[in-house]
Amino acid sequence: MTSSALDVVAIGDAIVDVIATCDDSFIAARGLPKGGMQLLTTGQADDLYAAMGPAREISGGSAANSMAGIAALGLNAGFIGQVADDQLGEIFAHDMTALGVRFETPPMASPPPTGRCLILVTPDAQRTMNTSPGASHELTPAALDEEMIRGASVTFLEGYLWGPERPRAAMLKAAEIAHAAGRTVAFTLSESLCIGDRRAGVMSMIDGGTADILFGNEDEIRHLTGCGELSDCIAALTPKVRTLVLTRGAAGALAAEAGSTVEVAAAPVERVVDTTGAGDLFAAGFLAARCRGRDLAGCLEAGAACAAEVISHFGARPEADLRALVRL
Amino acid sequence: MTSSALDVVAIGDAIVDVIATCDDSFIAARGLPKGGMQLLTTGQADDLYAAMGPAREISGGSAANSMAGIAALGLNAGFIGQVADDQLGEIFAHDMTALGVRFETPPMASPPPTGRCLILVTPDAQRTMNTSPGASHELTPAALDEEMIRGASVTFLEGYLWGPERPRAAMLKAAEIAHAAGRTVAFTLSESLCIGDRRAGVMSMIDGGTADILFGNEDEIRHLTGCGELSDCIAALTPKVRTLVLTRGAAGALAAEAGSTVEVAAAPVERVVDTTGAGDLFAAGFLAARCRGRDLAGCLEAGAACAAEVISHFGARPEADLRALVRL
Repeated sequence: MTSSALDVVAIGDAIVDVIATCDDSFIAARGLPKGGMQLLTTGQADDLYAAMGPAREISGGSAANSMAGIAALGLNAGFIGQVADDQLGEIFAHDMTALGVRFETPPMASPPPTGRCLILVTPDAQRTMNTSPGASHELTPAALDEEMIRGASVTFLEGYLWGPERPRAAMLKAAEIAHAAGRTVAFTLSESLCIGDRRAGVMSMIDGGTADILFGNEDEIRHLTGCGELSDCIAALTPKVRTLVLTRGAAGALAAEAGSTVEVAAAPVERVVDTTGAGDLFAAGFLAARCRGRDLAGCLEAGAACAAEVISHFGARPEADLRALVRL
Repeated sequence: MTSSALDVVAIGDAIVDVIATCDDSFIAARGLPKGGMQLLTTGQADDLYAAMGPAREISGGSAANSMAGIAALGLNAGFIGQVADDQLGEIFAHDMTALGVRFETPPMASPPPTGRCLILVTPDAQRTMNTSPGASHELTPAALDEEMIRGASVTFLEGYLWGPERPRAAMLKAAEIAHAAGRTVAFTLSESLCIGDRRAGVMSMIDGGTADILFGNEDEIRHLTGCGELSDCIAALTPKVRTLVLTRGAAGALAAEAGSTVEVAAAPVERVVDTTGAGDLFAAGFLAARCRGRDLAGCLEAGAACAAEVISHFGARPEADLRALVRL
């Protein structure tokens, strides 16, 4: 098979989002982690789904959303993730390939079914995510397309998939393959990774030099470093990663690299509808601009523009023509 | 089981819509029936799906959309339709019951799978529908909940489901049950029913007094009656049905009943995004207002308001609070 080399290949959850709106009282009454993510068992997911309002289904998955953004920006993207041989798996695969993302991980026999994330969007546009990971947590190192990883400029690893053992082993193996080929590895934090007994493992991965580029938000790097002041968090991480990218929601974003720090404001949005995917699309814009040789400020601006597009509508995949919005 | 009697019970396709945007060139190159509906085989549906862009999935089905509207307006609605025991069937059932629609038709073993409609929305907001009916065309008279039909003020029959033999038999049986209980039967035309060798069968059903209320658009009643002038079409149908409701898109709607004709303008819409479901939600508003005792003009106005809401966003199910929009 001949194919052009990829700009970015990602390893992450292969998930279909099930998106409904609700009031704050629903979130409170069920004790859901407002603004955050929790993992559900199949039974818990069935209970929550039964209680939710009518929904729309849109393919999701954090790193998969980023690859949708990379492809929408006109770059070559690939994705490695595990779906089951079922209807949601077909929907996920269709949406990836329809965007031009190379997605060739074979589906596995169900059960477990393809993963889904029950997303509840409150009137303040915050999303509360309840993930039933299903097949996506069954990814094994054997599923890696090593040739794809060797050929990609950047290998992008999703923090949500770092929790379960086999996918973590797959991601560590992918990072080794990428580094051996002289490529860049990027890692995006997730809140659950940065707290409790997982924190040490993530820090040890970062200490070990796995992540050349590290993406995170303020909460994540505060939990991870244990520092209160943002400047202290940054100072704690910059010696360990080549590039630190920190998203701050409405306060914009900053990046630290080679001893200097650059900041950008958030891009303006007429009406924020659903913040799901903001960080994912920020990473897409940043990495696409980086692959096209932009300087640090240009990368942050591209990230901010992509994030602004995705929060202006329901769903974590871009709908507008990103190539027209962000000229790379 | 105790339950309050229904205002409206519908029999129709149980389908999940798969909605993508495309340019007119895509419609033209594939010879798709722009603005209309065609039935696809499974193989044809797979081919078209593979060629389509990334999509969102939202429960659909013409009469099911109408029942979603009835429930969103605060009335008691029920739905009878056939899904398969698969993920799309679960999604369809969830969305119905989450809206408060009574939906108790047991899923059947797959194959065929739950039906889906590949909807392509062009920049002019027109939808082109490509339906793979799957399980929905396997509905049999045995699936009818006769008690539900006897108790409902209106039994609403969907023209799209009139084509295949067993669902047609189910609908005829439902109409008999409803009439024997002194209830009203409404029928909504579909374009494919009104042309070719099906036209005579539909006219004979109407001649036989099955439809007390008949919904259609201009194209449908022109094809059905063979008349060119709208006034002639109306004159040809009014002796056969108690109430004729005619939707005319941006030109508004009219109804003829008991020798008089009433017209309303279309309700204003800031931006028409996707016209899918306009007729379905018009019927919902009309029937809900009728059940609440409104006069003919009030029924048309409620229909127009519901249609305006559904064309302002993607998907054929209401998203805004219809109870606030249409006070019944």
